[in-house]
Amino acid sequence: MQIAIVLFDRFTALDAVGPYEMLCRIPDAETIFVAERTGPVRNDAGSLQLVADRTLAEVPRPDIVVVPGGPGQTAQMENEELLGWLRAADAASTWTTSVCTGSLLLAAAGLLDGRRATSHWLALDSLAAFGAEPTGERVVTDGKFITAAGVSSGIDMALTLVGRVAGDRYAQAVQLGAEYDPQPPYDAGSPLKAPADLVEEMRGRSRFILR
Amino acid sequence: MQIAIVLFDRFTALDAVGPYEMLCRIPDAETIFVAERTGPVRNDAGSLQLVADRTLAEVPRPDIVVVPGGPGQTAQMENEELLGWLRAADAASTWTTSVCTGSLLLAAAGLLDGRRATSHWLALDSLAAFGAEPTGERVVTDGKFITAAGVSSGIDMALTLVGRVAGDRYAQAVQLGAEYDPQPPYDAGSPLKAPADLVEEMRGRSRFILR
Repeated sequence: MQIAIVLFDRFTALDAVGPYEMLCRIPDAETIFVAERTGPVRNDAGSLQLVADRTLAEVPRPDIVVVPGGPGQTAQMENEELLGWLRAADAASTWTTSVCTGSLLLAAAGLLDGRRATSHWLALDSLAAFGAEPTGERVVTDGKFITAAGVSSGIDMALTLVGRVAGDRYAQAVQLGAEYDPQPPYDAGSPLKAPADLVEEMRGRSRFILR
Repeated sequence: MQIAIVLFDRFTALDAVGPYEMLCRIPDAETIFVAERTGPVRNDAGSLQLVADRTLAEVPRPDIVVVPGGPGQTAQMENEELLGWLRAADAASTWTTSVCTGSLLLAAAGLLDGRRATSHWLALDSLAAFGAEPTGERVVTDGKFITAAGVSSGIDMALTLVGRVAGDRYAQAVQLGAEYDPQPPYDAGSPLKAPADLVEEMRGRSRFILR
């Protein structure tokens, strides 16, 4: 089974590595970071580089596609090389997935028309504008499409996918191996739970964190 | 403020990138991946490469030290170049932290003698053997040392640290930006919660996941 995780300039690191850490444990999975060109790809903060081992063209038919998000997504919305690859890869994939604003790229490729999907909470309106039907859920499955909300939600998405591909017990083993028993020190991880004035402040300058 | 995240061959990717994603958002933080040599460093599964931008010697006095774990930790336990750097960096740091079996490296450097600390649940006995006092908590703070349990717990550790360094409100903003409102699809993330036979199976072959 081949799993392709797409990288592009100014992606958000945890969007890609959260799912990677879960999916790479699937038995006999070949997990590959892909990009337009091979070599280091820099993240949104500029201080992390993850290496793309293969070009998009070299991995035309992965079984699972994972599209992370990040501020760099904006510059990819009319990149026909990437969008065309997403369409062709999706035509053959078993699962097509995204994290955060990665769903906007799937939508821009025309893959989420009329589908239930999600994205970073600050990007749900944009997702609707591109033809999807946004929901407030953290992980949304519609047919073979699994989209996740912002950044860290990719871990929950991927663990869900491990269960679908390798069974519940294997997914539990992966969860236990990663000691994924989250205990955040604050309860501000969604716009429904965070202080209202903080939510408004971040809506007002939505690149505050996702710079 | 300088933050150094240590890389070594066969580290676990999420151990490093989970904390990175939180800590790199600290205002005016310079977050640097460091290793014995600069260039790509390969993770435990072999399919991910993160770039070390600076050598250990080039970053001698970071304010915050982060030591991830992973199966590659074993080969570092007598690496005097790394252990010596950890001792010298710790002598000047404000915070010295670890994720997963990274605490075994801090312990091997003699930094956790008699201190309360934690590690991956499969490594707690080893941590005691190296002179620390293991606890079952997910994030343990003892003075300026903050150690985290397995893999994903580095996110909780780092968000705790963001709060200490930049204040609760800023940490909440980082949590909201990363939409860190975890909803794991299974409840098997700790040995106290996972099916008992699965815990025993993993104890029996403790490289099952952490290969």
